[in-house]
Amino acid sequence: MPDFNGRLSALRARMQASGTDLVAVGPSSHMLWLSGVSPHGDERPVMQIVSADHVAFLMPKLNVDAARKDTDLPFYPWADDEGPNGALDALLREFGVKEKSGLKVALDETMRADFALLLLGALKEPRHAFTGETVAALRARKDAEEYRILKDNALLNDRAAEAAFSALKEGMTELDVAEVVKIFYRAEGAVAEFTIIGFGENGAFPHHHCSNRRLKRGDAVLVDIGGRNRGYPSDMTRMGHFGPAPEGLEEVHAIVDRAVKAAIAAAKPGVRARDVDAAARNVIAEAGYGEYFLHRTGHGVGIDIHEGPYITATSDVVLEEGNVFSIEPGIYLKGRFGVRLEEVVILKADGAEVLSGLPRDLVRRG
Amino acid sequence: MPDFNGRLSALRARMQASGTDLVAVGPSSHMLWLSGVSPHGDERPVMQIVSADHVAFLMPKLNVDAARKDTDLPFYPWADDEGPNGALDALLREFGVKEKSGLKVALDETMRADFALLLLGALKEPRHAFTGETVAALRARKDAEEYRILKDNALLNDRAAEAAFSALKEGMTELDVAEVVKIFYRAEGAVAEFTIIGFGENGAFPHHHCSNRRLKRGDAVLVDIGGRNRGYPSDMTRMGHFGPAPEGLEEVHAIVDRAVKAAIAAAKPGVRARDVDAAARNVIAEAGYGEYFLHRTGHGVGIDIHEGPYITATSDVVLEEGNVFSIEPGIYLKGRFGVRLEEVVILKADGAEVLSGLPRDLVRRG
Repeated sequence: MPDFNGRLSALRARMQASGTDLVAVGPSSHMLWLSGVSPHGDERPVMQIVSADHVAFLMPKLNVDAARKDTDLPFYPWADDEGPNGALDALLREFGVKEKSGLKVALDETMRADFALLLLGALKEPRHAFTGETVAALRARKDAEEYRILKDNALLNDRAAEAAFSALKEGMTELDVAEVVKIFYRAEGAVAEFTIIGFGENGAFPHHHCSNRRLKRGDAVLVDIGGRNRGYPSDMTRMGHFGPAPEGLEEVHAIVDRAVKAAIAAAKPGVRARDVDAAARNVIAEAGYGEYFLHRTGHGVGIDIHEGPYITATSDVVLEEGNVFSIEPGIYLKGRFGVRLEEVVILKADGAEVLSGLPRDLVRRG
Repeated sequence: MPDFNGRLSALRARMQASGTDLVAVGPSSHMLWLSGVSPHGDERPVMQIVSADHVAFLMPKLNVDAARKDTDLPFYPWADDEGPNGALDALLREFGVKEKSGLKVALDETMRADFALLLLGALKEPRHAFTGETVAALRARKDAEEYRILKDNALLNDRAAEAAFSALKEGMTELDVAEVVKIFYRAEGAVAEFTIIGFGENGAFPHHHCSNRRLKRGDAVLVDIGGRNRGYPSDMTRMGHFGPAPEGLEEVHAIVDRAVKAAIAAAKPGVRARDVDAAARNVIAEAGYGEYFLHRTGHGVGIDIHEGPYITATSDVVLEEGNVFSIEPGIYLKGRFGVRLEEVVILKADGAEVLSGLPRDLVRRG
């Protein structure tokens, strides 16, 4: 079991350093990370609130017993026929913050809007922030156990990608390939987190939904998949083609691969996220494809498939040892194909270690 | 395809009636209902904003092409390296609301906290509300096509529940039964929305997660399941026992069944939600089990498995023709068993029609 007391202490140190008076997390991966509690998430307000000297949950009464199995922290339960306001006020009074003005509250950015505004509305002129300086910053530095899980999952994902490419057959749909991947994960005790299979022109949509588009000779094939196991997902993209490579695919693939290598080389503790993004982006821009690289270079991977640190062109976040994030530049040529290659790396003291063991070469099938 | 123009017109009429200047929905079932758009939901702000004379989407650039397949409405795209503020400001200027003070903004209550606070922060002293008077009110009145889908799904769910009870075997786990239900749905082209299987004392947790608890003789069995098909879920709870009925089960079951009947009889257009709740609650209270009925009587069912109208002890919402909601009183006896019986009803002019065709009798197995 993770060291939840240690995580709470680390959070309070970050709160002090950032002048944060309260942290409030919803029924999300932030709460799961902080306390191991994963309550039923519906429209009933539930949150864990932390101050320098208090910690408690606002909790719908009907979830109290189930949540009690996972934590000994105090609950402020509320029944459906009372609503949450009374319990929340009691909690804030016990914390000694109900009457204080101008407190800085770090909100779980993924929390429902009505939960967040309920809390802000119960305080006097609060200043809000999100968890970037507190919970999210802590979650971005993976510990040894998290590293081991992420590494295992990446190696499992290598085999899932191989299974996907091995399954390719003329006339097969993208959804068929996704099904192969899902069954592969299930047989290994994992669950598909997402499966993007893009044939031909569909690869040019960065967030393509799998369709009934059938595979034909001359198609590029994009496989971007991840499976969740032991609480953490994997994420990887590889490219291939079925039959002859479409015109330009090999050239574009080589450019994107160079961009990946440049970003991996740039990724070290102490470097800004924007510098890693720039390393990839410059390779693509210099090759004349800058306008076809539509998105950021990467995102952190942890309990969430997207979390900090985000590797964008404008982020001044300084990368730290233990950060785990994707490097996934792409070039999207509408109506033809898209090429994305994605690695997930962990920052060690001397640089980035790629979790996957699978080459990024174009896979040739058919 | 649903009549999205008609829905937008109906929304504007509700906005005028409720003095709402702007409605903002996130990548949620509200957006799906209003415009048929279901963008990739991640940390990138995306929302559809409606005023009396404008409607547009704030949209991450990399999702523009995929979303464009579903709508012709204007997009304000933003790239990862710019962030969303510029595009949002341009949208609000085009709407003529950027410089106006004190506008009433109805926020999608399910929207991420950071999306909602981004919008509120871009306006001058906005007053916020949620969608109860606007989008949610409209969604609560189902049209003929929605009724047909919900009815079909309820009848499918009847058979799924029968399959679950038929599968019961000594030593089987709750998860095994859930798997039977999932496979049943899949074979029918549906997808499990949720499966709560509670053996014995586990039935006393209203939102129990299925576990490896094994079935033994003398256990009560709670089956609360729903499957999604053609965009809408089903939801139903039935009770049974394996081997001899545990002491008290038949008596408690009879009380809960009377509570269901009383609530169904009370449910008509023009009645307040609290009166339906009271009808069920009074039966249980009079039988001496009031403190063991831990939750509200029901929730609306539509694109979301939980939506308005909520049937609570304090809701003054007046029920309308076309409302679809659950009636699901329960009595939870910790350490022994829980009994919940759940019907989903639609309000016709002359009263409630139960969607399911399955009796609520205790199912005897083993």
